[in-house]
Amino acid sequence: MPHSSVALSIIETGRRLDARGLAPATAGNYSVRLDEDSILITGSGAHKGRLTAAQLLRVAPDGTALDPGKASAETLLHCLVYAVDAAAGAVLHTHSVAGTVLSRALAGADHIELADYELLKVFPGIGTHECSVRLPLVDNSQDMVALAAEVRPLLEAQELLIPAFYIRGHGLYAWGPTIEAAEMIVEGCEFLLACAWEDLKFKGAGR
Amino acid sequence: MPHSSVALSIIETGRRLDARGLAPATAGNYSVRLDEDSILITGSGAHKGRLTAAQLLRVAPDGTALDPGKASAETLLHCLVYAVDAAAGAVLHTHSVAGTVLSRALAGADHIELADYELLKVFPGIGTHECSVRLPLVDNSQDMVALAAEVRPLLEAQELLIPAFYIRGHGLYAWGPTIEAAEMIVEGCEFLLACAWEDLKFKGAGR
Amino acid sequence: MPHSSVALSIIETGRRLDARGLAPATAGNYSVRLDEDSILITGSGAHKGRLTAAQLLRVAPDGTALDPGKASAETLLHCLVYAVDAAAGAVLHTHSVAGTVLSRALAGADHIELADYELLKVFPGIGTHECSVRLPLVDNSQDMVALAAEVRPLLEAQELLIPAFYIRGHGLYAWGPTIEAAEMIVEGCEFLLACAWEDLKFKGAGR
Amino acid sequence: MPHSSVALSIIETGRRLDARGLAPATAGNYSVRLDEDSILITGSGAHKGRLTAAQLLRVAPDGTALDPGKASAETLLHCLVYAVDAAAGAVLHTHSVAGTVLSRALAGADHIELADYELLKVFPGIGTHECSVRLPLVDNSQDMVALAAEVRPLLEAQELLIPAFYIRGHGLYAWGPTIEAAEMIVEGCEFLLACAWEDLKFKGAGR
Repeated sequence: MPHSSVALSIIETGRRLDARGLAPATAGNYSVRLDEDSILITGSGAHKGRLTAAQLLRVAPDGTALDPGKASAETLLHCLVYAVDAAAGAVLHTHSVAGTVLSRALAGADHIELADYELLKVFPGIGTHECSVRLPLVDNSQDMVALAAEVRPLLEAQELLIPAFYIRGHGLYAWGPTIEAAEMIVEGCEFLLACAWEDLKFKGAGR
Repeated sequence: MPHSSVALSIIETGRRLDARGLAPATAGNYSVRLDEDSILITGSGAHKGRLTAAQLLRVAPDGTALDPGKASAETLLHCLVYAVDAAAGAVLHTHSVAGTVLSRALAGADHIELADYELLKVFPGIGTHECSVRLPLVDNSQDMVALAAEVRPLLEAQELLIPAFYIRGHGLYAWGPTIEAAEMIVEGCEFLLACAWEDLKFKGAGR
Repeated sequence: MPHSSVALSIIETGRRLDARGLAPATAGNYSVRLDEDSILITGSGAHKGRLTAAQLLRVAPDGTALDPGKASAETLLHCLVYAVDAAAGAVLHTHSVAGTVLSRALAGADHIELADYELLKVFPGIGTHECSVRLPLVDNSQDMVALAAEVRPLLEAQELLIPAFYIRGHGLYAWGPTIEAAEMIVEGCEFLLACAWEDLKFKGAGR
Repeated sequence: MPHSSVALSIIETGRRLDARGLAPATAGNYSVRLDEDSILITGSGAHKGRLTAAQLLRVAPDGTALDPGKASAETLLHCLVYAVDAAAGAVLHTHSVAGTVLSRALAGADHIELADYELLKVFPGIGTHECSVRLPLVDNSQDMVALAAEVRPLLEAQELLIPAFYIRGHGLYAWGPTIEAAEMIVEGCEFLLACAWEDLKFKGAGR
């Protein structure tokens, strides 16, 4: 198995994300770009806190399965990220209570604004807290082709590509050149989303 | 001990649920249907985070003990689930702060409405977030015969059987064909209840 | 060391309470009644999540040290519990954010009222949620003789002795016949205090 | 490696702080004063929950690197603490959601007031809850020389030196004679900040 160390890194990342409360039930899916022709991705229906190598499979850049098994239903969103960001080496999709409720409270918004937090420096190219990052936010959909088509222009319109976006009432997508780097983006984003939710509650809805 | 692997799965599930903060003190009880004549269930008074096989015992489908020891006081609710849902193979009863306070805040309601969350897909037969699931909610009672009689029609009235219900100020019942599947329902429900509580607090009581 | 197994139980309990976030810094102290003449108690200044047997020492029922070392500053409160409740075999003193802020928000109150929660059944003699338990609440003081004198009548006035009390802005005292039983009371109380704090925030202060 | 046991203590402290949710992504940095000429400090960009000895390096009291590698960008703040407090043997910089949002909500304030909490006794020289501790609070800056210059007078103006300060929207600095003592200050401060945030939310902003 030539990608066994990659599989192990996905398994360990899943264990850590679950321990942080970011992988309820079978929610979430993780992938690593093996080479220009293949992506190793979590299969459908597995608990991310106790993944096994047998629950991973390879897909082509267009999402076609290269191994037996059923890839995650959201495989196309991973493919989208790899297509849009040549530097993306791994994609993680996680779920938190704070992110879910914040994204719903921001009804109608197409971004989550995060400003003046030191943790913004987790994003590549951001070297100061004195800025405002707009995390793209899209409505949820079960049609992955349509969802990918909605996310794509938001990513491509960014002057500085923020390696993360949020699906309303659903969860976070985050990525990086390596799975370790992607995990850092997840940790940073989830921390910032938790802060933003506390801030919004404190200020009040219409206040 | 013919059901030793089942016992082990209950012990491990208890350890995980406790680590997630869903098993305070001796609260909660767990069971697995062994065959059509017997159910393996946690005994009364044990801490669910450090169960031993000796703290489990078999009961008949009507709740009568088949082994020495005292079965959980809530055994009849487990029996109810197995009677109503032929597909139920395991039942888990858990407790969370968010679920407890949410169920109390919804005074008078006979359900907890959960709508537009991606995590709703944790329920069998739910393939989209674009729906509203009504988790049956009943008042707490120490009379298990009465409580079972109150829950039964709520379960039977559902067009699509949601494998979970809530007892106000008390806790969650969730089930599935296997104990692994039941644990997924617990994780999904507790995540959704935490979201619903945050939503309700944000919108305010009478607003 | 004749009480080495007791020491081990204190060490393990401390590790678990710390993992639940109930033992910040060196806060908290734990004791077990060894016999009618001696109590094994945590020494002053130790982190409760990584106790060693050397950080425990014996004191007499009046708090006088029987071993070298400095007993916890709050030893007299442990002695009070053993004096008031002949059934007390172990006393645990823990700290949580929810309990601290709830007790401060209830300015002037001499009890924390907990009603209609299933978890109330964690208290000995309470067999139903349909009741209201009044957890004694006293103002904080650094004078342990004065504090004990304030707590004592509140405990003695109870028709049914609730094995727990709270010191405002400080923390919880809970006990039971064994350290395992005392830990159950702690888990139940801290769950209930977290619920009560959420309830109070939801209803609002003066509403 | 003469300071290998010191390196190990930093690694273990990082693991514990991460487990408590105080080290998201690569945020935070930790140091120990080895002698009057050198400080061992975490390098730039490492995850604090899984540090290795190779990610630590020595710097001089003025922040100049004595080993190959890139020291934390915030090295100068560590140097400031060692310069101002001769008793400082270790400095820890941590991040929490509660501290971040509390410090932002206190816009314009130059301190976070913490009063009447038992946990205040975590600070050296504080023997009672009956006092008010003012944790110095400064605006965030990416200019470490300027930030150190802003913090220094706040520390020096204190009658009783509180071994901690907060950078708004950023995080906590805390220290002690040993890394174990510094970790106690972190745990105590983060507990107090979480309490203060709950208090402020309860009382409301302008109320």
